[in-house]
Order: sequence, then structure tokens, then C-alpha cells
Amino acid sequence: MPEIRKDGIVERWVVFSPERLRRPMQYDLHAIEDANHEPDPFLSGNESYTPPEVFAIREPGSTANGPGWKVRVVPNHFPALRVEGELHKEAVGLYDKMSGVGAHEVVIETPEANVELEQQPLENIVNVLKAYRSRLADLTKDIRFRYLFAFKNVGLLAGASLKHAHSQIIALPVIPINIREKLDAAKKHYAQKERNLFEDILKAEIKSGERLVFQNAGYGAFCPFASRFSFEVMIMPRQQRCNFHNCTDHELVLLADILQKVLLAYRVGLERPDYNLILHTAPVRSSKSDDWDTMEQDFRWHIEIFPRLSGVAGFEFGTGFYINPMLPEDSAKFLREVKINA
Amino acid sequence: MPEIRKDGIVERWVVFSPERLRRPMQYDLHAIEDANHEPDPFLSGNESYTPPEVFAIREPGSTANGPGWKVRVVPNHFPALRVEGELHKEAVGLYDKMSGVGAHEVVIETPEANVELEQQPLENIVNVLKAYRSRLADLTKDIRFRYLFAFKNVGLLAGASLKHAHSQIIALPVIPINIREKLDAAKKHYAQKERNLFEDILKAEIKSGERLVFQNAGYGAFCPFASRFSFEVMIMPRQQRCNFHNCTDHELVLLADILQKVLLAYRVGLERPDYNLILHTAPVRSSKSDDWDTMEQDFRWHIEIFPRLSGVAGFEFGTGFYINPMLPEDSAKFLREVKINA
Repeated sequence: MPEIRKDGIVERWVVFSPERLRRPMQYDLHAIEDANHEPDPFLSGNESYTPPEVFAIREPGSTANGPGWKVRVVPNHFPALRVEGELHKEAVGLYDKMSGVGAHEVVIETPEANVELEQQPLENIVNVLKAYRSRLADLTKDIRFRYLFAFKNVGLLAGASLKHAHSQIIALPVIPINIREKLDAAKKHYAQKERNLFEDILKAEIKSGERLVFQNAGYGAFCPFASRFSFEVMIMPRQQRCNFHNCTDHELVLLADILQKVLLAYRVGLERPDYNLILHTAPVRSSKSDDWDTMEQDFRWHIEIFPRLSGVAGFEFGTGFYINPMLPEDSAKFLREVKINA
Repeated sequence: MPEIRKDGIVERWVVFSPERLRRPMQYDLHAIEDANHEPDPFLSGNESYTPPEVFAIREPGSTANGPGWKVRVVPNHFPALRVEGELHKEAVGLYDKMSGVGAHEVVIETPEANVELEQQPLENIVNVLKAYRSRLADLTKDIRFRYLFAFKNVGLLAGASLKHAHSQIIALPVIPINIREKLDAAKKHYAQKERNLFEDILKAEIKSGERLVFQNAGYGAFCPFASRFSFEVMIMPRQQRCNFHNCTDHELVLLADILQKVLLAYRVGLERPDYNLILHTAPVRSSKSDDWDTMEQDFRWHIEIFPRLSGVAGFEFGTGFYINPMLPEDSAKFLREVKINA
């Protein structure tokens, strides 16, 4: 019998139907080919292909916008939003619009081609997380921005257009609906129980263990109860932290450790799937003053990662529900048992 | 300057950034290949590959589950939801779940392979719409179901697994969040203005014409003000109809006409893109009694169609916002000017 589950945080229902795993597939996901062989703009030595860097971790003695970097952050050459200009809002007949003020940056995770984030030494993964922290902290100062976050698209099915390992940072002038729902749920839970919703979920997942994938001194990684996708993983810090940019160096080392394990389990167990990674952190400004009442206690930053093994289709767009052929208990067991050091 | 627009119906923001059109693309969308050459289960003569039909439009004298059909509806062989069983709801620790009761059917749109919906004579497209109407009307009788709708996934990027032209019908035991948002917006608009929100939008789009793609005596087809995707089209009836299953034969003929034109414009102008089509109609049952107060006047069924020219990526999943490189005014102009009879 299929089962319908509701997410523990947002109003989202997921239909679990193992039956769907037996569907014949008339398309070959592995047959997606390269469109071109243009120069890699993110390769060491090609620094002039990108806008000037806004952050880098470099070898001593190397100079900005030349080689010698380990991680490099540049404004997106094809930005979805623009840093310049004021925020204007206006009505257009029945409708509303505002100017596209924001920031859109690219975190180049390695100077080398054909090396994925999880294949690097732990220290380099820590550097990538430090780049996120530094840019999020810096962009927070711009009073036009209300919400900042980092994300990573790997492969065509996850919406990537470039192959060189990279992630992106975006600053928005509004708090997006997905975060609004999480903020409201966290606040409501705290108001009712004086407990943190994320803490309650993490503790329950660690205690039961059936959906737990990995844990270390700083974090738990588990497949959420109403996972939208097979092998979806949430990484949550044990320490209460509202904003990611307040993480300590030590916390980033522990995060790099658990993140690498999850991505290696994907790589080895699922044969390097396309995936998305999203770092959700608290908003930095809001038009609602009561957002701040208990946010430091009720909201916690977290990471969502999901492989894109099947498309998001008419059902999902029509309803906001998801169909997932695999229960998170089975996904977690599979990921736990992958030999990631093989 | 990019522009951020809010949808006229739901709380959804879209970032329009033409800059993104210039992004280099290192993957070739056209290089997706066939995974296998298994027999086509939807072909005339292969009726035994599917569960027995629940509806068909047939040549006189032909018999059920044999050849001689024009359109055929069968239960999905790999259903996301099951018709059998009772609806149970239960708590699981912090979480909620319910049994996966529902219906999942496949509308086989043609007995032939390699023929798409829009390539058929108008009469066959009308038959497909009649199949939707008949199945939606029939499933409405099952008191366990609250929401029914039809959708169509074409191509791998739109989540399809089979190539033979088909669409799907789903019945759910809950009203999905996407419909809830539309119902609430429609009700609020009506309460404030005693006018139908969908009617207001359709009239404004026809009057301005800048986002209008096609119109006929029964329908308008336009690119919504805050289109999530380039070339996204909404088809809306001029007549107030809450439920699709109450459409007359004549209304279906006019719908087939405008739908064929939109799909041919996609086929010719965009070189047969992968796309999703979703038929949104009113719920048939609800746990909220005031849903019915003005629904007949305030909500209107409609169709959304969008080609999947780029992936849904970390940005969209992280925020609920969309990034669209093309303004709907430009999309509409392009689609209007395609020579669909060439």
C-alpha cells in the first residue's frame, strides 16, 4: 500500500509508492553529452574569463585574479539579480513587480577541472565552507537584502550549465516563501512548546536511527520523514545556530566531514548522480518585526541535499506534492551501507 | 536591469533576467538517447500489456481491450496511489501520515507510435479531452477523493518515462497546497470585489494583448505576467466554469482548437521541446465547509503548459521563486509569430 506523509516542518505531502520503482524507463540518463568544448572559465590560469574576485583563499605570495588560489568567489557573469540600483516596487495593472536588486556570486571550489567537491582533501572542503561563511557575512551588511543563501547544482538534471565544481550565493530583497513557511512553523512550535522544532526533529532521528545516515560530534545527517526524493538528506547542526555565518572554524571542519561522507555515499552508491544542495539560513532583515522575537532560539540553519534521479513533473507542479518511490528508511539504510572508502 | 514579478493568483515571485539567456551551456539537451527498445505497451494490438480499460472511444463493432480504439484509458500499471482500501490517518512520533488511497490512470491519446497529441486531427484531440471529462466525472463519485486533475509529461526533462503519447489522471484524498492557494486567492478576490479573479486576469490580458498568444470564441491563451518558465502558457475559458467535467462538447471542440495551436507553436517554434501540461479544476470535496460559499462564482478551471528548456535547480528549490530569462511579453510575441501551418 502506498503511504502519504507530511513533512515535519512545512505543509508538504509526499506520496511514497515503491511500485513506481518498477516503471520501465525509455530514456537513458547516462547518454547526456557535452554540448561544446569551450575553455573552462573556472580553471586556474583562466581568471580573466570571470569578473574580478570578491573573495579567495590563496597560496602565500599569489596575487588577486591570478593563479595560486584554492577557492575563489566571483560575481556571476550572467547574474539573475544585479547589485547596482535601488529597490523600486510598483503595481502594473492587477499585478506587482519590483526591481531585480540582489547579488549573485559563484564559489569556484577548486582550481582544477574534473574534480568534484567530495573528491578533495577535507581542508579544501572546509575552505569552500569558509567562502560561504565569509560571503554571507559580507552581503548581510547591505541593507537592501533580506535573505541570503548558498546552493549547488551538479549536472544537467539538477539545472547546472557548467561542469567545473562550483556553487552559488544569492542575496534577495524579499524573504522567499519557502523560508517564510519554515520560519512560521519554527516560531509556532516554539510558542507552543518552548522547544526548538529542528532540535526536536534531530533528536528524534538520532534516537530512532532508522532514517539516520551519518553523525559526528557536530551534526546529524538523515533522510527526512517526508523526503521528496529518494536519497534526500538533511544535515542539521547539534548546536543551536540561527545563522550559518556565525559558525566557528571548528564547526565548519565537522560540517565538511559529514558533507563529504554524504556526497561520497552518493558518488559511490548512486554512480555520481546529478544533485542539488541548498544551505538554508535565517533571514537577515524582515518587514515583520515579530520575526525576531524568538528566531535565535526557534530557527536553525540546515542543509538539504537531493539527487535528481527522476524529473519534477506535472504531478509535482500541479499539486505541490511529490511522488517518491523509496521510503526514507530504505534510502538511509542504503546510504549508511555504501563503502565510501572503497 | 532584472525585474521581479509576483504572480497574479498565488504567492509566487519570479526573477526575470534576460542576461541568463547568454549563459554558455555545456550539456546537449538533444543528445538524450533511448534506453531500450522494449515493446510499446500503448500501441494498438498491445492492449494486453496494460490493465483492462476503464474508458475508450472505439470504432463501431470493436471490443473492449482489443484494437479499434481512438483513445483508451487504463489504470496505471505502476500507480502512485491505490484505489483499494480505506483512508487511514495516523501520527508517527512528531509526524503525520495517511494511507495512499487514490486513483492513477493513463489516457492513451492515440493507437499509433510516434504521433504526438498536436499532430492528430482535431477530432482526436477532442476525444482526448472527452476522456479527461468522462474520467474526472466518474472518479468524482468516489467519496474518498477530494481532488482530481489531469496532466501530461512529455520527454525526459518533463519527467516522462514512456514516449507513446499519453496523459495521466490522478485522484487524491486531500486538497493539495497549490490548489488551496488558488482557491483562497480566488475567494478573497471575490469577497473584496464581487468579481472573479480569473475573469479579471483574462479580460486584462485580452485587452492589453501584449502577453496574448491565441484566442478563439471560447478561450484565451496567454503567457502569465509572472511566468515561471520561458514560453509558459495559461489557457482560460471565457465562460465561468468551476469544474472541467461540466464542459459541453462544443466547449471541448474550442479547447482542442486552441490547445492544438499552442502545442504546434511549441513544436515548430521551439523544435519539439519537452513540456508539462496541467489541468487545474475545482476540488470535489473539502473538510472546510466555507470552501463552497462562492466557489461556483470565484474559481475557474484552467490549463498551464510550460516547456522544460532549463532545469528546476537549487535556487527554485531553496526559495520557491523561479528564475526566468525571458519576459512573457517576448515569449508571447514569439509564439504568436510562429508559422504553425508551415
